[in-house]
Amino acid sequence: MISKNEIKYIQSLYHKKVRDEAELFIAEGIKLVDELLNSPFVIRKIYATKEWAGTAAFPATIITEQHELDKISNLSTPNQVLAIVEQKKLTHQPIEKNKITLVLDGIQDPGNLGTIIRTADWFGITQIIANTDTADVYNSKVVQSTMGSIIRVNVWYKDIEQWLSTASVPVFGALLNGQSIYKTTKIKEGILVIGNESKGIRSNILPFIKHAITIPGSGHAESLNAAVATGIILSHLLQ
Amino acid sequence: MISKNEIKYIQSLYHKKVRDEAELFIAEGIKLVDELLNSPFVIRKIYATKEWAGTAAFPATIITEQHELDKISNLSTPNQVLAIVEQKKLTHQPIEKNKITLVLDGIQDPGNLGTIIRTADWFGITQIIANTDTADVYNSKVVQSTMGSIIRVNVWYKDIEQWLSTASVPVFGALLNGQSIYKTTKIKEGILVIGNESKGIRSNILPFIKHAITIPGSGHAESLNAAVATGIILSHLLQ
Repeated sequence: MISKNEIKYIQSLYHKKVRDEAELFIAEGIKLVDELLNSPFVIRKIYATKEWAGTAAFPATIITEQHELDKISNLSTPNQVLAIVEQKKLTHQPIEKNKITLVLDGIQDPGNLGTIIRTADWFGITQIIANTDTADVYNSKVVQSTMGSIIRVNVWYKDIEQWLSTASVPVFGALLNGQSIYKTTKIKEGILVIGNESKGIRSNILPFIKHAITIPGSGHAESLNAAVATGIILSHLLQ
Repeated sequence: MISKNEIKYIQSLYHKKVRDEAELFIAEGIKLVDELLNSPFVIRKIYATKEWAGTAAFPATIITEQHELDKISNLSTPNQVLAIVEQKKLTHQPIEKNKITLVLDGIQDPGNLGTIIRTADWFGITQIIANTDTADVYNSKVVQSTMGSIIRVNVWYKDIEQWLSTASVPVFGALLNGQSIYKTTKIKEGILVIGNESKGIRSNILPFIKHAITIPGSGHAESLNAAVATGIILSHLLQ
């Protein structure tokens, strides 16, 4: 049984301001919560059905009624368990050398950001620098769509114009008039900049792009989804 | 001014059953509606702000109040115009020869389906065979996330097991234990099967996959998003 105040508090964590002040976020579902329990993330509290709680080592507040879970969940089909988790404190600065770093110039859609994080993780990329106007990594839609990759990929929020001005490795950018991905050489270190969904890479960032790259298309779509473009470019740059 | 009955009717079109009986669907936003007006699709009715209606050749029912638009829209930020459009009648059968055909084994997420359609369009693929349990192409979330590609890409709903049993071109499938995309030869005709988000390609479909292909990953994500995987594989098969 969850109290009304607890329900209110959990719902308030869906708002960035409250979330950031409390330095917490919400993660849902059996798979993601299990992964978090087996990670360095600190779980503050778990709400779960009897079924989940019966098999878990972590003590949970039992949810007896489906409508309680519906109230605290942000999923269309709530799945047994919801965890309140401490946000990761990024103690070190991102390192560029011998690594690929993704730079996001203001990705707006939470699903896109989550999918980009998941794609980065697939290709072994563990650091993302997001311009300060990028969607919040602790937005619950982002958390869910990373499918667990939020555990392994670090996202720093920075003024990317300033950050890129100090970069000492090759800077690639996804643009419409660059070199074909089929002709780029494979890289082991560098920065890949991905633009905003509607504006692309903004004009103040363009001067930093030393290697513009393009995904040739023979059809009529105007552009690719940002996460799809990220995946395609990474698969060609890193193979 | 829209009547209450009209609002109710439009809202009912967000349900597949009503939509299919009426053979209609809803499309929203300036860009998409403009593209539809310049396409073979038949627009049945348009609801728009004065601003949009003032510049358009198509007669619109004027929306005077924002809350009216909010009521009929399915977008979090409604954008000036909403069209009721006739569903495309697919008169011909899909042709396999000299083409790439995508086959979807039950993609569930509307955003994924829309993004796959958009990605197909980017690579010049115009035909998709979706198993009957795939999300509905006329679901408004699918329509919106195709970003206009719904105009150019045809989606047939079929029992794909039966359909694949008659296929006469090479059948590729995205699997975890196939040949690396970096080693596959480029193709000009063939079928690419993409699996369901959680189950992958189902066991009854596996016997048809003559060329299993895999996207090697060096990280720790368990899988890639279905649309991202589609984009990566297409970019390597078609380059």
